[in-house]
Amino acid sequence: METTPTNRSKRKGKQPEVVAGNGLLDRRAFLRGGAAIAGAVMGYTFVGSAAAEPLQEQPWSLEPGTISPPYEKPSRFEEKVARTLSNPKGEARTQHARTPHHLINGTITPNGLHFTIVHTGTPDIDPDKHRLVIHGLVKRPLEFTLEALARYPMASRMSFVECGGNSSPLFSKEPAQGSVQALHGLASCAEWTGVRLSTLLDETGIDPKAKWFIAEGADAPALSRSVPLSKALDDAMIALYQNGERLMPGNGYPMRLLLPGWEGNMNVKFLRRIKLVESPALSYYEARTYAPILPGGKAYQFYFLQEVKSFITQPSPGLALKEPGFYEISGVAYSGNGRISKVMVSADGGRSWAQAILQEPVHSKAFTRFRMPWRWDGGPAVLQSRAWDEAGYVQPTRAQILAARGESQRVLPITAFAGQHYNGPTSWAIARNGEVKHVYA
Amino acid sequence: METTPTNRSKRKGKQPEVVAGNGLLDRRAFLRGGAAIAGAVMGYTFVGSAAAEPLQEQPWSLEPGTISPPYEKPSRFEEKVARTLSNPKGEARTQHARTPHHLINGTITPNGLHFTIVHTGTPDIDPDKHRLVIHGLVKRPLEFTLEALARYPMASRMSFVECGGNSSPLFSKEPAQGSVQALHGLASCAEWTGVRLSTLLDETGIDPKAKWFIAEGADAPALSRSVPLSKALDDAMIALYQNGERLMPGNGYPMRLLLPGWEGNMNVKFLRRIKLVESPALSYYEARTYAPILPGGKAYQFYFLQEVKSFITQPSPGLALKEPGFYEISGVAYSGNGRISKVMVSADGGRSWAQAILQEPVHSKAFTRFRMPWRWDGGPAVLQSRAWDEAGYVQPTRAQILAARGESQRVLPITAFAGQHYNGPTSWAIARNGEVKHVYA
Repeated sequence: METTPTNRSKRKGKQPEVVAGNGLLDRRAFLRGGAAIAGAVMGYTFVGSAAAEPLQEQPWSLEPGTISPPYEKPSRFEEKVARTLSNPKGEARTQHARTPHHLINGTITPNGLHFTIVHTGTPDIDPDKHRLVIHGLVKRPLEFTLEALARYPMASRMSFVECGGNSSPLFSKEPAQGSVQALHGLASCAEWTGVRLSTLLDETGIDPKAKWFIAEGADAPALSRSVPLSKALDDAMIALYQNGERLMPGNGYPMRLLLPGWEGNMNVKFLRRIKLVESPALSYYEARTYAPILPGGKAYQFYFLQEVKSFITQPSPGLALKEPGFYEISGVAYSGNGRISKVMVSADGGRSWAQAILQEPVHSKAFTRFRMPWRWDGGPAVLQSRAWDEAGYVQPTRAQILAARGESQRVLPITAFAGQHYNGPTSWAIARNGEVKHVYA
Repeated sequence: METTPTNRSKRKGKQPEVVAGNGLLDRRAFLRGGAAIAGAVMGYTFVGSAAAEPLQEQPWSLEPGTISPPYEKPSRFEEKVARTLSNPKGEARTQHARTPHHLINGTITPNGLHFTIVHTGTPDIDPDKHRLVIHGLVKRPLEFTLEALARYPMASRMSFVECGGNSSPLFSKEPAQGSVQALHGLASCAEWTGVRLSTLLDETGIDPKAKWFIAEGADAPALSRSVPLSKALDDAMIALYQNGERLMPGNGYPMRLLLPGWEGNMNVKFLRRIKLVESPALSYYEARTYAPILPGGKAYQFYFLQEVKSFITQPSPGLALKEPGFYEISGVAYSGNGRISKVMVSADGGRSWAQAILQEPVHSKAFTRFRMPWRWDGGPAVLQSRAWDEAGYVQPTRAQILAARGESQRVLPITAFAGQHYNGPTSWAIARNGEVKHVYA
């Protein structure tokens, strides 16, 4: 039986409403009773094809396959799904490895693709010889082996980690041309498991004079950051596992400090030392890299929070649309303040907005996947997202950020660090030929 | 200032209560105000060591490290964290790769360590040539490329997958000696992302005569299973992503059927065909492997649910306790019926029980990590766990399962499949020397 648009509509009830400019559709169409309305939204002629030869045999169905390995890796057809490297020869400077957000989906960044930044390469640490020492303004300095830590009460939590310099190309005078990986690839999200720092501080005791602690890594620069003690007593964790297995080498193996929602650089990797002190250490990174001068002349220092942010991952540059019709707009939103409460999406460069689906469960200080049904009519469109968190904060506009913190007067290369903590919107322009480009809108 | 047990106790308030035999401690000690009571629970002299030489330099702190790779792998010191293989040479029979539950933590099984079973090896599928066809009792048969599926509304969910034969050694007359990996390694948990099957069936339309569908894989045996259509309209998914990245080859790349909470074999991998039909196909696996004869002579067929279950992963065989003192007992619980509502733990072989902490969030049909504080006094102990789900089901005793389904009269090798769907308790005996052994208790 042939089904015309008319009786399809009758079968399904009413067509989902267009709720904002350029074809954004009512998200609730996909919330009632599963996908009962989906066929009416999409029109099967756009996506699925009539099945003519349903069972054409392929060579892999006709011969035995490969042997299961002890540790499985992605298919050889997925080699393009990789981190981009800023310093692939390991020269004597920082190495960045960025997450390919446009090629993954869901809320978890798989361990192979979690972003990393290391300043003198990744140390090859023997976990049996590694020690964590807690000392300074404590009642009894203690040293912990990995085996000792494994006996403590543990906890797991989803948490994003984001470099303070992520999205820095957005400070550039002209829109830097690159993928979502190049622009926002220094943020990732994982389930971290370990021992709460407060548990260990309860073992050492705390001298009442202590107000900060200095965390130090075992890599060659002994990367150090000062952290208010209040964070240690809140949700700081000595993370030992990342998505179930031991931390990846570039993520701090065998242990890192996890400060959920706070600047990536403070989540000290290869953690070997926590020293309780009265005041911050003014270490290299907090005195230099993370203390840029503001337009008024003051230093922008000791800002720890990665504030509310979102970006669209599909469609995005490199993922051209092949033809008009139904697409899902999807992206990630997160906030160091807690849970995401709302994400609005625009397809007309911010003139009109519609509310996206937030994929459940929405975790505090973790990636939340948002999804928005969209019918592209084949004309120019500009896609944007804007997120709110449960503390009431909303992503500022790019103009607000530049007014407060200054604009780079140069057109910067895509990997330059022009500024810190950009959390404004990102705009993707869709051309008539379906190509997607970064624009300011 | 030296802190004696007496003034420690004063500082912390009262010591946490021993709530069941052999040293199980009140789980709530760790729930009020973070870990404020932890020091009093554990006694620092048992776990951390006095820090004498806090900053002994190791070689990796004194030289540049390695180059960040495009796709990161675990440290070379983690090579033992691997799946065990039943058929490492890929002979012409089934290959099992089992998850090392005792060496991982949290709730997510990392993709490299997710269990897999393949019957003629893993096909090397070119995703651009792979097609999914939906036909049979539909209004319009449709064919989908991976690119077409990527345009549909997607969803992510945490879900365990478990082989019906997982834990089968527990049917053996004598307790099989092996690790939790050998006994229970055919269950894993991941975040799966894909397109709901109901969305695609809304595109094809459904002939009212359809009551089942047959799912078929593109591997050499064209593995087929019959599934009630009601599951397709409930939570069945065409999974494309596993923990954020494309499915691992052994998990069905480029797409698999995900039937949350149902027998692993039905979650057809390398999915190429869904045919809607009036009655089940009586395919090889449903007519033979998954239709064992019960003591009364009837076949135990078309049981789909993986029912409520739990096992302790730490401590467990291979993880000997070095000395008396505080340990965390930890494990995973899950149910195909929905959420886990309660896990009870015993340290005296089931004579007394105490309630474990359920790590939040508790997802439906997914691994829930339970944790229980325990002080081992150095004497013999038998650890067990028992889980309840929100539908009110509880793990049966081993005796109840054997009475209903028969006991193997032989002492079976650890990898034998003596029966299906064992969901009774597992008992770990701790000897005075700290070694852990599988027992029936």
